[in-house]
Order: sequence, then C-alpha cells, then structure tokens
Amino acid sequence: MKKQIFTLEATTSTTAARAGTIKTDHGDITTPFFMPVGTYGAVKTFSSNEIKQLPSKILLSNTYHLYLRPGTEILEAAGGLHNFMNWQGAILTDSGGFQIFSLEGFRKISEDGVTFRSHLDGSKHHFTPERIVDIQRSIGSDFMMMLDVCPPGNADKKTWIDALETTTRWAKRGMDHYHKTEPIYGHQQILLPIVQGGTDIELRRRSARELCELGAEAYAIGGLAVGEPKPKMLSTVELMNEELPKDKPRYLMGVGTPADLVRNVARGVDMFDCVMPTRNARNSQIFTFNGKINIRNAQYRNDFSLIDETSTSPYSVKYTKAYLHHLFRTQEILGLRIASQHNLHFYIKLMETMRERIIQDTFEDWANGFLKNYDGEVL
Amino acid sequence: MKKQIFTLEATTSTTAARAGTIKTDHGDITTPFFMPVGTYGAVKTFSSNEIKQLPSKILLSNTYHLYLRPGTEILEAAGGLHNFMNWQGAILTDSGGFQIFSLEGFRKISEDGVTFRSHLDGSKHHFTPERIVDIQRSIGSDFMMMLDVCPPGNADKKTWIDALETTTRWAKRGMDHYHKTEPIYGHQQILLPIVQGGTDIELRRRSARELCELGAEAYAIGGLAVGEPKPKMLSTVELMNEELPKDKPRYLMGVGTPADLVRNVARGVDMFDCVMPTRNARNSQIFTFNGKINIRNAQYRNDFSLIDETSTSPYSVKYTKAYLHHLFRTQEILGLRIASQHNLHFYIKLMETMRERIIQDTFEDWANGFLKNYDGEVL
Repeated sequence: MKKQIFTLEATTSTTAARAGTIKTDHGDITTPFFMPVGTYGAVKTFSSNEIKQLPSKILLSNTYHLYLRPGTEILEAAGGLHNFMNWQGAILTDSGGFQIFSLEGFRKISEDGVTFRSHLDGSKHHFTPERIVDIQRSIGSDFMMMLDVCPPGNADKKTWIDALETTTRWAKRGMDHYHKTEPIYGHQQILLPIVQGGTDIELRRRSARELCELGAEAYAIGGLAVGEPKPKMLSTVELMNEELPKDKPRYLMGVGTPADLVRNVARGVDMFDCVMPTRNARNSQIFTFNGKINIRNAQYRNDFSLIDETSTSPYSVKYTKAYLHHLFRTQEILGLRIASQHNLHFYIKLMETMRERIIQDTFEDWANGFLKNYDGEVL
Repeated sequence: MKKQIFTLEATTSTTAARAGTIKTDHGDITTPFFMPVGTYGAVKTFSSNEIKQLPSKILLSNTYHLYLRPGTEILEAAGGLHNFMNWQGAILTDSGGFQIFSLEGFRKISEDGVTFRSHLDGSKHHFTPERIVDIQRSIGSDFMMMLDVCPPGNADKKTWIDALETTTRWAKRGMDHYHKTEPIYGHQQILLPIVQGGTDIELRRRSARELCELGAEAYAIGGLAVGEPKPKMLSTVELMNEELPKDKPRYLMGVGTPADLVRNVARGVDMFDCVMPTRNARNSQIFTFNGKINIRNAQYRNDFSLIDETSTSPYSVKYTKAYLHHLFRTQEILGLRIASQHNLHFYIKLMETMRERIIQDTFEDWANGFLKNYDGEVL
C-alpha cells in the first residue's frame, strides 16, 4: 500500500503558488523548498552539520558523479550515501541524464539506453533506465530521478519529439524496474519521471500526459533553463501547472536565479535545485534581498558594514564586507565558505519567506515587491 | 608600572619542561601552547569561532603579509586585526624578518633596516626596527616581534656574527621605540626580542645575554628549524634554557613536527607555532598519536573506520577514512577542512596532554612513550 507523500496545505487566491509538506523517511520537508547541490556527496565548502543548520532538510547529489567516484561498491559498503557523508536529512539524486547530455565527448543514445565516456578517464559506460534505478538504490536517495533525454533549449522540433518519446519509453521501463526492486537500506525511495518536450506546448502536454499515466508520487519538469528564452520557460511551467496533478509535488530541475524561484513558485512549482548560490559564491558574487554584489569590487576594500545587514546567516552577522573582500583577494578558503554560506542561507530564507507569504495569502504583493527591487520587473 | 605577564606554575624533576600561564588583555593562555598560523588574518579553512573551539586561545599572523594585504590603513580603519577578523583571543605577529629573508627576489640589509620587494607586485618597501613596531601597533597584536636578521641554518660563522650583532642593535632601537609609543586600541602589547647566533654555542650565549639586558617580558628563539641538523637545534634550545630568564616565557619560532614539540617542551620551551598541521593537512597528511597517515592512499578507499579513533575533533568523530579519501580525490574543500581541523586539534591536544603530564610530573615517561611510538626514538 503506497503512502501519499505530499500534503497540500495552502494555495493563494491570485497565483498558482502553493505550500505543503513532503514526508520522507529522513524527515518532513515543507514546500516550496530549495535543495543545495552536493555533486560528489558534499555541498561545496559545507560540512553535513552546516547544511542542516542553513537550515536545509534536503540536498541534491549527482548519480553520474557518484557512480564514477566513489562508485556504487563503496557506497553500498558504506551503507548508502546518507551514512557515507553523515547526513540524516533527505537526498534527491538526479539521473545523470543531464550530465551525460552535457558531456562534450562521446555519447550515443540507443533504444536500450545511453553509452558515454567518463569525463575523468575516458572509460566507457552504459546507462539504461533500469541501471539508473539500480544505481540510485545503491546510493539510497529518498528521491530518485528517471533516466531521460534532455536536448538543448535551441533544439529543433524533431529532436524534441524524439527526446520526449524516448523519455516516455524509458520512464515506463524505469517505473517497472522500480516496482520490481526494493530499497537496500530500508527507507522509502520515490522515483520521479521527468517531463520533456522543449518549449512546444503540444509536446509538453503530450509528455506530461504520458508520464502522468505512470502514477508516480511526484513529477519533475526537465529540459528547461537549458538556453531557451525566459518567457518560454515561464509559459511552459504555467502549462505544467495545469497538466500535472495538484496533489503531487512538482520539481523544476536546475532553476535558478532568486527571481526565477519567485516566478516559478508563483506558477505552482514546489521543489528547486541549482548550483548558482554556491558556484557564484566561489566567484565572489553575494546575493541579498536588494540584489547582487561582487565582493571583490574595490569599493568594498574599506567598507566595514556587515556583509548583508538583512541576513541572519551565522557568518554574515560576524564579518564585514572589507574582511570578506580581503579573504577573496588573499584566496583564503574562509572567503569561499562565508560567501557560500551566505548565498545558500539567502536562497533558503527566500523559500521560507515565500512559504509564509503563501500561507498568509499575501504572496503576490510580496513577490512583486521583491522582484521590482531585484530586477525591476514583476511576476 | 609593568605587569608580570607570566606565572610559572609547575616544573618537572627530570626535564626542563614547565607549565605556566600568560596573562593577556585577550584572555589567559596556559603554557606550553601551540599557535595556529593565520598568515593573512585567517587560519586556513577556519572561521574565527572554529579556532576558538579547537580550543585555541591564541593564533599567529604575519606582519609582512598583513602589511602588504590588507595594509595598515585598512587594519586601523577596522580597529585592528582582532576586530577585522572577529577574533576575541590573543594574537602574536611575527616581525616579517623571516619572510623577508626567505624572499627569493631583491632584499638589502643596511644598518637602518631592510629594503625588499613585495612578492605580490615587486613594489619596493623599507622596514626598520621602529617601523616594524609601528606596523604591529596598527595590527594591534598582543605579542609583537622585533625585526631580526635570520640567516639560513648552513650559513658561515661570519654571517651568524653579523646577523646577531645587527639583531642586537635593532632590538635596542625597537625596544626604545616600543617604550616611546602606546597601543592604539587600548590593550597591552608585549614586544619580544629574538635570539640569533645560529647553532654556535658562544654566539647564541652572547645573543641571549645582550638581549636579556633589554628586560623584555618574553623571549623568542629564532634562526632554528632553518635547515640545521636536529641535534644542533636541540642542544641550542638546551643552552637557551640556561641563558633565558626562568620567569619569562620562551617562544621557539616556526617549530615543528609533533616530536619536535615534545622534545623542545622537555627543553623548557613554552610557545610554538608552525604551518605544518594546516599545510600538511592540505596535502592529505593526517597526524595521529600513532603516527602520520596519507589519506589519499588507496588503502583508505574502503576503510570505514573513523579518521582517528583516538581523536575528539568534531569532524573526526563523524566522518570515516573512506569519506575523507573520497573528498580528497574529488577535491572537495570539506576534505581540506576536515584534515586541517583534525591536525590542529591533534597539535593542541598534544600540548594539553604535555601540560597535564608536567603538572603531574609524569612528563618524561609519557614523552618517551609517545616518541617511541611516533618515531622510534626517545627525548
């Protein structure tokens, strides 16, 4: 008997924004939420305890990367990724599809699956929809992703059609295999199909409907934030809000900027992940409720104000812009830590704020205020 | 009226090891102690709160580096280094002498001081004994070091004589200037002369006696761990134990390995600093009470035992060798953090253990046991 993992708790009267709770065997997670990215089983610069204190109850890791290093044998010997990295919260792993289709080197799609060469040593590997489920069983992630075909945002219609058709056939095989296999470590694992179809309305609708027939517990929207124009992304997400079941969580993969999060929450998305807060932090970009700043800029050399007066991030309330500027100039790891901590804290605080506004049904006004301040536009 | 900063609390019956307390305006520090090195005002990978939790009550920073970046103007505007880096413990700053004499490029010693080019941009700078005190007044360190001349360990006698004579003349000028100037930030600053003389008994004795006439509150032993044979280092420190006043702290600069710390504590040294625990950590070397291990070695790939079963370091009790091995292989910053935290925690725990053994007067037996286990030799 399958348990319902998602409870919808609040909707808004003027947008599609919604708030709920997802139950996992590694704790309840309130929606909407943002997942810090820990590609290799570590969120860059963070200890597992610090991820928890952000506070984040879930992180994302990468099946493709973990499969290559440390490999499933080590992960199984460790008792799964939770144990390996000493993380008691939930984990979502992507399928590796996006990474493989981003590889510059060799890759070949067949009906069976995808063959590719490792970016590390050029060794040849073959992923199938079934194998990807098995690997994620070895990892022990709470949310597993289907193997999908993810074409670039400027692909032609023929490519989009092929991608969505293969994605649907693979999703059926993956779901079959999922139902025939058991979790290795005792906790529940949910498998998410990924809607494709580019930014073509008819193709997206078809992909969503085909995948909804699988009766999954949650759905992902893939193939966006891959180079398409932003209005196309937003209209595609609007369509997904109509097509995907209201009582299941929706995950928009790899999105995005703070403004993207707000605009897509307004369009009914519950789950997000993106490397932006941590990657941009390492490039000295600091996110604040008043926009972005580059802490390497000379103007911060003697600016002894706090990194962000509005932040409650533990480091941001202790250190000044001048000190953070100095740490970046002297290439101190502490600089990367403070910036990464600040940015992820900002992202997670942003999600918490949106949740509060949704529950109060003051989301639209708040969102338009935030966006005007942030990029001068509205929802 | 000068206050006595050091209280000698315990000596041992069979070695020169001693335990005491140094009072500073940033807290009392029990001796013997080890100072983590924060060259640019940050102990590599650590936040200021984490240094405190090692637990360390004092850290070392570098006058030469801080003078170049961020510069004294920024440090003064910040209200000193303590404020700049948000560190409430004590700080010792070296004089820059050692760094300047280690520079590969241009440097020129005159009676007035030393002229050198920055390793960053080749710009020309001039340090005098007076200027070095002024810079450390701007930094606001609790312990300031004299400008000295530090020749390499294989220098000839003529070089050693010149170095010690210049060092003495500079120390007199530095001490004069110290007495004529006041701390900028209100807290007490102690100036330490640095004994030179290579490993020549007569020269060392002469240097120590000349500097003792200055009546400083603490003394440093410089010009060791610069390439001389280890027995020469130890016999020189033994001489210093005879020559330097018993009621003043002695600081052996830039030393060293865990075994070096034990052997020099046995010879009456109270204060140490070294980049080894953090630098070696970044090169994947882990210190334990049973010796060193290189965590990148293939044998740790599937070793799910704790990093060091005897350690109480916060990360070391949470993560396995296999995970740390994986973090180094995937170049995750968390790996550098765990290793650095572990090694500094080991060094500081080692100092605490020695202090306990000194107070119990069981130091010699313990030290010989530790050393036999560590490098097969005794004190």
